[in-house]
Amino acid sequence: MSRPVRRRLLPIPLQRVRIEGGLWGERMRVNREATIPHVYRKCRETGRTGVWKLLVGPGRAEGRSHQFWDSDVAKWMEAAAYSLAAFPDAKLERKLDDLVDLMAAAQMDDGYLNSHFQLTAPANRWANLRDNHELYCAGHLMEAAVAYYEATGKRKFLDVMCRYADHIDRTFGPDKGKKRGYPGHEEIELALVKLHRATGEGRYLDLARFFIDERGREPKYFAAEARARGEAMPPWAGGLHYWQAHAPVREQTTAEGHSVRALYLYSGMADVAAETGDASLLSACRRLWRNIVRRRMYVTGSVGSSAHGERFTFDYDLPNETSYAETCANIALVFWAHRMLQIEEDGEYADVMELALHNGVLAGLSLDGREFFYANRHALHLGPGGPSGGGFPPARQEWFDCACCPPNIARLLAALPQYVHSESDRQVSVHLYAESTAHATIGGEEVVVEQHTDYPWHERVRITVRPPRPLAFTLALRIPGWCCSPRLKINGRAVGLPQLARKGYARIKRTWHRGDRVELTLPMPVERIEANPHVRSNAGRVALQRGPVVYCLEEMDNGADLNDLALPRRAALTAKRDARLLGGTVAISGAARRRSQRGWRDTLYRGDPSKTTAARIRAIPYYLWANRKLGEMLVWVRKC
Amino acid sequence: MSRPVRRRLLPIPLQRVRIEGGLWGERMRVNREATIPHVYRKCRETGRTGVWKLLVGPGRAEGRSHQFWDSDVAKWMEAAAYSLAAFPDAKLERKLDDLVDLMAAAQMDDGYLNSHFQLTAPANRWANLRDNHELYCAGHLMEAAVAYYEATGKRKFLDVMCRYADHIDRTFGPDKGKKRGYPGHEEIELALVKLHRATGEGRYLDLARFFIDERGREPKYFAAEARARGEAMPPWAGGLHYWQAHAPVREQTTAEGHSVRALYLYSGMADVAAETGDASLLSACRRLWRNIVRRRMYVTGSVGSSAHGERFTFDYDLPNETSYAETCANIALVFWAHRMLQIEEDGEYADVMELALHNGVLAGLSLDGREFFYANRHALHLGPGGPSGGGFPPARQEWFDCACCPPNIARLLAALPQYVHSESDRQVSVHLYAESTAHATIGGEEVVVEQHTDYPWHERVRITVRPPRPLAFTLALRIPGWCCSPRLKINGRAVGLPQLARKGYARIKRTWHRGDRVELTLPMPVERIEANPHVRSNAGRVALQRGPVVYCLEEMDNGADLNDLALPRRAALTAKRDARLLGGTVAISGAARRRSQRGWRDTLYRGDPSKTTAARIRAIPYYLWANRKLGEMLVWVRKC
Repeated sequence: MSRPVRRRLLPIPLQRVRIEGGLWGERMRVNREATIPHVYRKCRETGRTGVWKLLVGPGRAEGRSHQFWDSDVAKWMEAAAYSLAAFPDAKLERKLDDLVDLMAAAQMDDGYLNSHFQLTAPANRWANLRDNHELYCAGHLMEAAVAYYEATGKRKFLDVMCRYADHIDRTFGPDKGKKRGYPGHEEIELALVKLHRATGEGRYLDLARFFIDERGREPKYFAAEARARGEAMPPWAGGLHYWQAHAPVREQTTAEGHSVRALYLYSGMADVAAETGDASLLSACRRLWRNIVRRRMYVTGSVGSSAHGERFTFDYDLPNETSYAETCANIALVFWAHRMLQIEEDGEYADVMELALHNGVLAGLSLDGREFFYANRHALHLGPGGPSGGGFPPARQEWFDCACCPPNIARLLAALPQYVHSESDRQVSVHLYAESTAHATIGGEEVVVEQHTDYPWHERVRITVRPPRPLAFTLALRIPGWCCSPRLKINGRAVGLPQLARKGYARIKRTWHRGDRVELTLPMPVERIEANPHVRSNAGRVALQRGPVVYCLEEMDNGADLNDLALPRRAALTAKRDARLLGGTVAISGAARRRSQRGWRDTLYRGDPSKTTAARIRAIPYYLWANRKLGEMLVWVRKC
Repeated sequence: MSRPVRRRLLPIPLQRVRIEGGLWGERMRVNREATIPHVYRKCRETGRTGVWKLLVGPGRAEGRSHQFWDSDVAKWMEAAAYSLAAFPDAKLERKLDDLVDLMAAAQMDDGYLNSHFQLTAPANRWANLRDNHELYCAGHLMEAAVAYYEATGKRKFLDVMCRYADHIDRTFGPDKGKKRGYPGHEEIELALVKLHRATGEGRYLDLARFFIDERGREPKYFAAEARARGEAMPPWAGGLHYWQAHAPVREQTTAEGHSVRALYLYSGMADVAAETGDASLLSACRRLWRNIVRRRMYVTGSVGSSAHGERFTFDYDLPNETSYAETCANIALVFWAHRMLQIEEDGEYADVMELALHNGVLAGLSLDGREFFYANRHALHLGPGGPSGGGFPPARQEWFDCACCPPNIARLLAALPQYVHSESDRQVSVHLYAESTAHATIGGEEVVVEQHTDYPWHERVRITVRPPRPLAFTLALRIPGWCCSPRLKINGRAVGLPQLARKGYARIKRTWHRGDRVELTLPMPVERIEANPHVRSNAGRVALQRGPVVYCLEEMDNGADLNDLALPRRAALTAKRDARLLGGTVAISGAARRRSQRGWRDTLYRGDPSKTTAARIRAIPYYLWANRKLGEMLVWVRKC
């Protein structure tokens, strides 16, 4: 395996980290026991797995297929592979093996592999990169193959995907006779880097770089390709912003277009920059990052505010009732943040990663792991016109025709251990706090790092370090941006944090002895969060946050008409553990004022000010909403 | 002329009322001097008048036309006729005569008259009532013909339109061999009642009643008609709500579909009910009225909240930034309110009429009378994404391809005197307060009623009554619903109002002598208006209203980021006349708090509460917004 030199840090891979309890342990258990089987069942019921049998067996002519399907199955395979790495499961492994066997058998002699186009239009491949998701599906299959290889050591799937990558490499590139195209839905860029890292093959990295460098250059490939097909570009294509093809990527300064496409691209850009040390590419990533997290991100770490085009819109346009905030986009923000974190070692990336994980991502999944939000509202009003918002369902669904989100959240949760730590020759970093055990490798020696914590519900994290012998290295502990007064003890003795903290990490450099204990306390008062004044949908409102968890009001706890409630500036807000609430969580309660609805009856406007009456609010974590009866929900609560 | 017996009141026609100054005098002057000539010029430049020449002369083959055009020209003719009634103008009359001559020459032998279909598809008439605006155009031409006849006494246009009405009557109706259809865009119903009143012809009233009674019955005419054309109904046609054809009109309980269509229908229903005494039709009107004014009307008397389908949506759905509130719909609300008022003699109708006139209608026209809003926002934010809202322009426009609003506002303003008073055998009513002189007829005797007032800017209205001899009758003075503490003096002596007031009118029954003076004082404190809690877009906000005038903040007076401003509950708000502001108006000012934007820079969210600083607001009448530099606007201001 090639060792990437431009990342300061490498994640400790998930095979060496075990999350053993707490919020994430429970969510991973549900993922393993419910979500992964559920997604497989749905893939089977809908023909997504069966299509591969058709390709190699009888019945081919009647086969139904769809150009997204391979990506759904691939993401499930990736999730299952991550799960196998920690929890061996022979039956699950057999399901994967069977699929790999079918894919290997279906692969065309030249390496091409796509169930939909092989079934429906084998002669027409690579004719419409803009709309046909061939390269996107290829990327997801590559990610799955790498995950499967790393989990099981079996090469078959990896070899299949290398043959496919070789075919793609022969088809696309700057050389004469090759197509100078790039995908309409980015994904293969980051997948090729993974394949490169798994195999050491430099051509895969070069191809990823080509796809990124070529994107948005003149003459525009998508336009030329449309002309070659004898089609006009659709009138809404405009400057090709939807596909991030409006300009070369290094000239892009704002996050544009379809949000999942955009964030997969940015993740691939970060990967290529990490591998090649390309400073201009990294600069573009930094600019786009700043644009998103400083102008275009919901308080929950969700992105892509408009259902129309599932896209980024413009700075500070963050409507709540119609917020699209696709679960896949929030997941992709985690992917990108994680990549940037390894390169830059800056806590801002970890802060956003943590925020998205605990809020925008986790909201996508029901408590029982079998229902999903595709789009994530930040307010739901149930009026006479039905649910407010962009027309998408107000409750989680078992499945979607376009089923990108369910397997995506499954693969993220299954891979979660790899987000907890990074390691380098002289350092081990802790990015996420969770009850866990990690086996870091520092200068060739294995150091066990144990976390004992009930984070994010409880403020205290106890970390025990077990080097094989006294060993000098840095333990870098993330100090979350939301935390104003962190405290640190080493072996029971308080240590001043300011001296240690830099860019969001307390860097404790010392000779560590087996059993050394670090106690980090991250006080979690309930915070009233304000939005930038330019976010006019939140004017006069606050969101409640405790630790990394953003809260919301639900009708079930607060009655209907949530906008009648207002929080006095100075009212005390109390956080309290409630083991029986929604599988165990911390709820926030406090005094509020409720506008009286008395005397309104059928009056639409009046001059008499409404009375307000004393009321209480109870807020629950945003990610837990819509797990009970359908009702209103509100993140941004009025102040009074 | 037939005398309608089911209206308690009859408007004093505009020929007998003169508005002589003040807000409406000035607006009527601008209408006469600028808007009416401007609309004519635009009709000519765009071919709307020329198409009639083509019909009767050479060049017919090259003629451009459009199915809405006749209605635009008709509304201009109607406006010009009303204007002639008060201000004789030989040149203007000649323009009208020329058009009438062309129309008379173009009329087909059987009476049919429609420039567009005669030019393009004469054989295809009445084949698509749902989409083709033939009956709509016919209705507007009828209204124009009646107005022209009443203004000039010339019968030619009236006779043309009677022949057309006769043709329509031969074509449509319940009898065998006639089409059981009704218009896709209502208008002809109310026009046929006008024609009936002008001519005494009962068939016209019967035809209006037929169109109303038939609407929405099974089998649905629009569906049958589409089948006959070999077309499927468009998928969005649903239950035909867009055309108010989803149910028989007497079963309709909520205002549905295209708002102008709906309100023209309701106006026609009121007219037919007034003429026939049909109680079930009047009940339907009352139900629909209540639905609109208690659930679906903006605080400015504007209606039809959604640009999508230019339509009513659902109860309490009154978004501000995207409010469509088409000027024509607001005008049509005045038409309907005026009709209901004559039947029911209830101040609620006059209140809404006044509210719409002073706010939602007048906002449609620029101060100089040459620019128009088609859609009327209730908040405008100018952000990096451009103007907020439904995609319609944030500034008034000179003209529109679909130019319904400009001539509509011209005809309403030209006819405004007829909205001021009603008369009956024993009563004269004052519905609107404006500097004016009216010649009422009470029991056959002429009573002059003079109003001296600077309403709506000033609270006092002095009324002088001049009967030819001491005469017993009731002077019914409207006590606006917005006024909490009206005061009344008769010949200098205070009179207790509560004993007199009933259903929004102070009914002063006495023997009136020549020169009797009534002084009505309608105190106009600045009111903070709240919206019903179910209107969630206005939660925590107030609108400012003084008298019938609703106010707004503009960026020009208050700086950008209007949502940073908040009004303290108890801050004094002062109204002050400013002769130099926007042609002379009353502005409201007061202390406010402004959220500081300090320290935000590129922060999107933060826990530190923003400081607020002392600020002042200046509000101007909503109808005057967008007459200066393009900038933000806000009707509903945050409270603090």
